[in-house]
Amino acid sequence: MSIPFTPLVASLPAAVPFVGPETIQRQTGEIFRARLGANESAFGMSPKAKAAVQAELEWASWYGDPENYDLRKALAEKHGVEMENIMVGEGVDAILGYTVRMIAGPGAPVVTSLGAYPTFNYHVAGYGAELITVPYRDDHEDPDALLSKVRETGAPLMYIANPDNPMGTWHDAGRIQALIDGVPDGCLLVLDEAYIDFAPDGSSPPVDVGNPKVIVMRTFSKAHGMAGMRVGYAIGHADLITGLGKVRNHFAMNRLSQVAALASLHDTEFLAWVVSEVETGRQETYALAERLGLQALPSATNFVAIDLGSSERATAMLQGLAAKGVFIRMPGVAPLNRCIRVSIGRPDERAIFAEAFEEVLRTL
Amino acid sequence: MSIPFTPLVASLPAAVPFVGPETIQRQTGEIFRARLGANESAFGMSPKAKAAVQAELEWASWYGDPENYDLRKALAEKHGVEMENIMVGEGVDAILGYTVRMIAGPGAPVVTSLGAYPTFNYHVAGYGAELITVPYRDDHEDPDALLSKVRETGAPLMYIANPDNPMGTWHDAGRIQALIDGVPDGCLLVLDEAYIDFAPDGSSPPVDVGNPKVIVMRTFSKAHGMAGMRVGYAIGHADLITGLGKVRNHFAMNRLSQVAALASLHDTEFLAWVVSEVETGRQETYALAERLGLQALPSATNFVAIDLGSSERATAMLQGLAAKGVFIRMPGVAPLNRCIRVSIGRPDERAIFAEAFEEVLRTL
Repeated sequence: MSIPFTPLVASLPAAVPFVGPETIQRQTGEIFRARLGANESAFGMSPKAKAAVQAELEWASWYGDPENYDLRKALAEKHGVEMENIMVGEGVDAILGYTVRMIAGPGAPVVTSLGAYPTFNYHVAGYGAELITVPYRDDHEDPDALLSKVRETGAPLMYIANPDNPMGTWHDAGRIQALIDGVPDGCLLVLDEAYIDFAPDGSSPPVDVGNPKVIVMRTFSKAHGMAGMRVGYAIGHADLITGLGKVRNHFAMNRLSQVAALASLHDTEFLAWVVSEVETGRQETYALAERLGLQALPSATNFVAIDLGSSERATAMLQGLAAKGVFIRMPGVAPLNRCIRVSIGRPDERAIFAEAFEEVLRTL
Repeated sequence: MSIPFTPLVASLPAAVPFVGPETIQRQTGEIFRARLGANESAFGMSPKAKAAVQAELEWASWYGDPENYDLRKALAEKHGVEMENIMVGEGVDAILGYTVRMIAGPGAPVVTSLGAYPTFNYHVAGYGAELITVPYRDDHEDPDALLSKVRETGAPLMYIANPDNPMGTWHDAGRIQALIDGVPDGCLLVLDEAYIDFAPDGSSPPVDVGNPKVIVMRTFSKAHGMAGMRVGYAIGHADLITGLGKVRNHFAMNRLSQVAALASLHDTEFLAWVVSEVETGRQETYALAERLGLQALPSATNFVAIDLGSSERATAMLQGLAAKGVFIRMPGVAPLNRCIRVSIGRPDERAIFAEAFEEVLRTL
């Protein structure tokens, strides 16, 4: 007597895109002193967002507005588009899942970079589509190689993150616009801008919601410090947003998260402070690496990749740091996995990291 | 130049399972005085859950534990099962979606009752499966008819809610156990117990996680007053939970919701108070109907269906109440749609409802 799984689900591995730090803590019995592995913001959520949550607690027994009207309206104003061009969802991970489901049926080729966001790949596998990868070039995602592969395979879906995760590198708006302009008919480009708040001005091309060949993903999980609140959004052609509306979970948004995101969106002063603190932390991390004779990759994100020279050394560094109570992550595949990836912490966390990093490095 | 939607998504209507009360408010420009349409709890969230949220606000920038370990552990203890038998998810709506995706591929027959939970039906359509319905019998879902239809069609998936929504009726544990025992090999029964906290003792059969033919859904949205927090869970055979783990969004849980659910689970005094208040409200609603010469259906939920005699009269009542600032809903199909469905409010909301109901009734 067996469970009537679909053949696709029966064939899927019981894999997870990421192991959470809590899982590691339960395994070791030790609480991390510095949690710098998931690019969560070390600078918390806006005080105004916290106040909004507290004021809304009385109404937590009500479902959130399934249209996410107030938040979509504010986001549409921010981006100079119409509300019909915005979908708000329960985190970008969920919206990526809906997007894959909307475009890539079983067997459809989907193009991304080898070593890019695992959760996107998880969704591609989950819907039975075929993941096709191209290598990074000089630690950057390679728009030309992505486009070539799309043309070669006829893929209906492709993915790029700008700035990139896990390397932290980025392209300027012109290069990304050229990528968008090169997307062939019959293909949709997912442009994941999760880290764009940390990037230099001129890294993001103007949103053109008249173009149905690109959908842009944004999140409140990084600069807004709301990873635990699950709020992301997509910007795109109205037909794309309508398509997502056919498959999304309409009542999925947490009511507290809706008001928190709206409050955080308006707290531009807080956001600027976070971005400035992260820049300070990046410079500190570059300087640490340089002092120790290592290369840190210039980053347009809230994390920095530090080159340890080999995957063995990077893995040993990750394990050594974990043993000292510091949680980081590292890229999963070569040649990226010669690096570790450390999120920018608060000053105290950065001090813990710097000391532990130097100690472990001496043992490698 | 068209968007490369999958044929399935291209064929789906741009429909939503429910129109939210906020949408109606935006259309009319009036705020509802009593929000009694979505079976949200009028009694709020446990004070202990609120305190847990406030204490966790400092860590809202961290992702929630993707294993939902603490909450699953507590739920496993409550139900006398292992953690491997529990999946926690971002609301039962999401878990229903994952369950449909896991079992019912394109064209697969899925059996439910005509007029039962629309969001389940939304997922069935969304994955291209074929919804097959059997009628209610005497305003109850009909286990025998459901089983007959499953045998007739070879459906791999069937759904029943006990207590039922939208009628509020229920079966005792023996009848549900007989249903479970009758599920043929190759079929999975979804037993949705969203409202079970409001039902008489003896309405829920013991959970048997050795049986892979049934999966039970529970929610924090109703008695726990956490609809806006999005927490539901499934209880079932470990292989079922593993299957859900292959398709679920691992980082979907809101961190504040995780701690709130755990605190609420332990606040049994609060839950008992809510259930008792709801019982008072139900009795009041039965009495109101009787006084006005109408029949209210006995309910094991936090809402009551009141029989208006025809869908025209029920619709007129719904519209008349809306015009008086009272939000309710009604079943979508005959013969259930001769009733309106009103959620149990606080005493002040019940007074508003009673007055408005009597006024509108006089105009019908």
